[in-house]
Amino acid sequence: MASIFSKFETEMQVRPDDIDMNQHVHNSRYFDYVLAARYDQMERCYGMPMQEFLKLGFGWVVRTAHLEFKRPLGLGDSFIARTWIDSIQEEGVVVHFEIIKKATSKLCCEGYFRYIMVNLESGRAEKIPDWIIQKYSI
Amino acid sequence: MASIFSKFETEMQVRPDDIDMNQHVHNSRYFDYVLAARYDQMERCYGMPMQEFLKLGFGWVVRTAHLEFKRPLGLGDSFIARTWIDSIQEEGVVVHFEIIKKATSKLCCEGYFRYIMVNLESGRAEKIPDWIIQKYSI
Amino acid sequence: MASIFSKFETEMQVRPDDIDMNQHVHNSRYFDYVLAARYDQMERCYGMPMQEFLKLGFGWVVRTAHLEFKRPLGLGDSFIARTWIDSIQEEGVVVHFEIIKKATSKLCCEGYFRYIMVNLESGRAEKIPDWIIQKYSI
Amino acid sequence: MASIFSKFETEMQVRPDDIDMNQHVHNSRYFDYVLAARYDQMERCYGMPMQEFLKLGFGWVVRTAHLEFKRPLGLGDSFIARTWIDSIQEEGVVVHFEIIKKATSKLCCEGYFRYIMVNLESGRAEKIPDWIIQKYSI
Repeated sequence: MASIFSKFETEMQVRPDDIDMNQHVHNSRYFDYVLAARYDQMERCYGMPMQEFLKLGFGWVVRTAHLEFKRPLGLGDSFIARTWIDSIQEEGVVVHFEIIKKATSKLCCEGYFRYIMVNLESGRAEKIPDWIIQKYSI
Repeated sequence: MASIFSKFETEMQVRPDDIDMNQHVHNSRYFDYVLAARYDQMERCYGMPMQEFLKLGFGWVVRTAHLEFKRPLGLGDSFIARTWIDSIQEEGVVVHFEIIKKATSKLCCEGYFRYIMVNLESGRAEKIPDWIIQKYSI
Repeated sequence: MASIFSKFETEMQVRPDDIDMNQHVHNSRYFDYVLAARYDQMERCYGMPMQEFLKLGFGWVVRTAHLEFKRPLGLGDSFIARTWIDSIQEEGVVVHFEIIKKATSKLCCEGYFRYIMVNLESGRAEKIPDWIIQKYSI
Repeated sequence: MASIFSKFETEMQVRPDDIDMNQHVHNSRYFDYVLAARYDQMERCYGMPMQEFLKLGFGWVVRTAHLEFKRPLGLGDSFIARTWIDSIQEEGVVVHFEIIKKATSKLCCEGYFRYIMVNLESGRAEKIPDWIIQKYSI
């Protein structure tokens, strides 16, 4: 069953410093691409930039990361980072993602991240306020 | 049930450039810590440095990465990266890992990586030769 | 005296993984921004993408890097990486750069890189062929 | 003339994620190696760890970085990062460095960084207190 939540897309380009000794994008950089896409989409699509979040004393921390590598991205490749909320729990959200090479429309990497909302003061997980759940429920 | 394969350990220290805006080790760097531990242990513990592998025309690519983040590492922390083979399949191996903060002996991150052996010429997955399986079966 | 060579510009955006513990772009990433701008401009402005270079058996290595940090870039900032050739010597080129924050048009970092052309086979510096000098002399 | 200040050394090892598409340590990582060496030496040699500095509301920012690349470091290489204070001015210090490959004792990279002491609250440069100058004057 498809997610009931909207899917959002961010277009980016591989930077030369992302390429590792195997001549492909270094595995851990896909992690960073998803992070960059979420920051972009929080601001542009959900109307809730991370900077506002931080000002309120909240932050998001990754509890689980799962990545399936399908095809490598290479030097100069443009790609789409598509992300969407799969589910919202009391203290966290599960965000799915796909990284798609623009030139071929082929899937390069997919997976999910489970984020927990934390109080930056205490470092502890916090129940997500309703107004934030509503912002995400689009 | 415990793995039948040996567990090996590599001690490392967080570098200042690993710290991100949240004052903790950036999530994607744990990925790199496990990679560094495997390179060290391939040479030191399995007697099969990656450089030899590359000379033979073989490489390892990550198909799946799964990470559970428990506690953050911070500036200057020393840690143990413990890895072990969970299972060996025809074309790949599943490697589990634990990252443990040295000062507290507490688990900071754990998970697994599924690696596929590839022929560097063709880029295709290759059946792992018996002699390599034997090297790993310790 | 102004350079006789053209100045080219590449627009980029700070990625969240570029931010370090001081909440600003990590110093060493400016290095990577200039590298990314050069790759972009080699292809788009000089008509000589790095990939072609590599196919010919040539590469560029950095001999000297000099960076003056004026103002930090922060989370989400867009910026212009402007680069231009200052001089061409027998075996290398000196490339100047400026990194300018888009929102304020203020200079954040400037400096230069001296690159040497090397033969990838031998790893040795090589006299730059005339046709390459001509490509750069715009 | 030799510096009147002590030279300190930190031994480190190249991590696989430091290697770039040219099979050598990525240029910008030398920047990070010097940073790591300074953090280590501030604590171990000057008796003034960065964490204490931050608690006092002070930080160090790089104003100038100059690097001369002599020979590349490669996969698995151990190296010595030697740093020393060249001069102390009212608001900053100039720190010289050498990166030496351990297996050959050959110089791989050298240069200097000019750091300014800033008040973290205001972000402004601050006159270095005498007690800090004394800590450094060894």
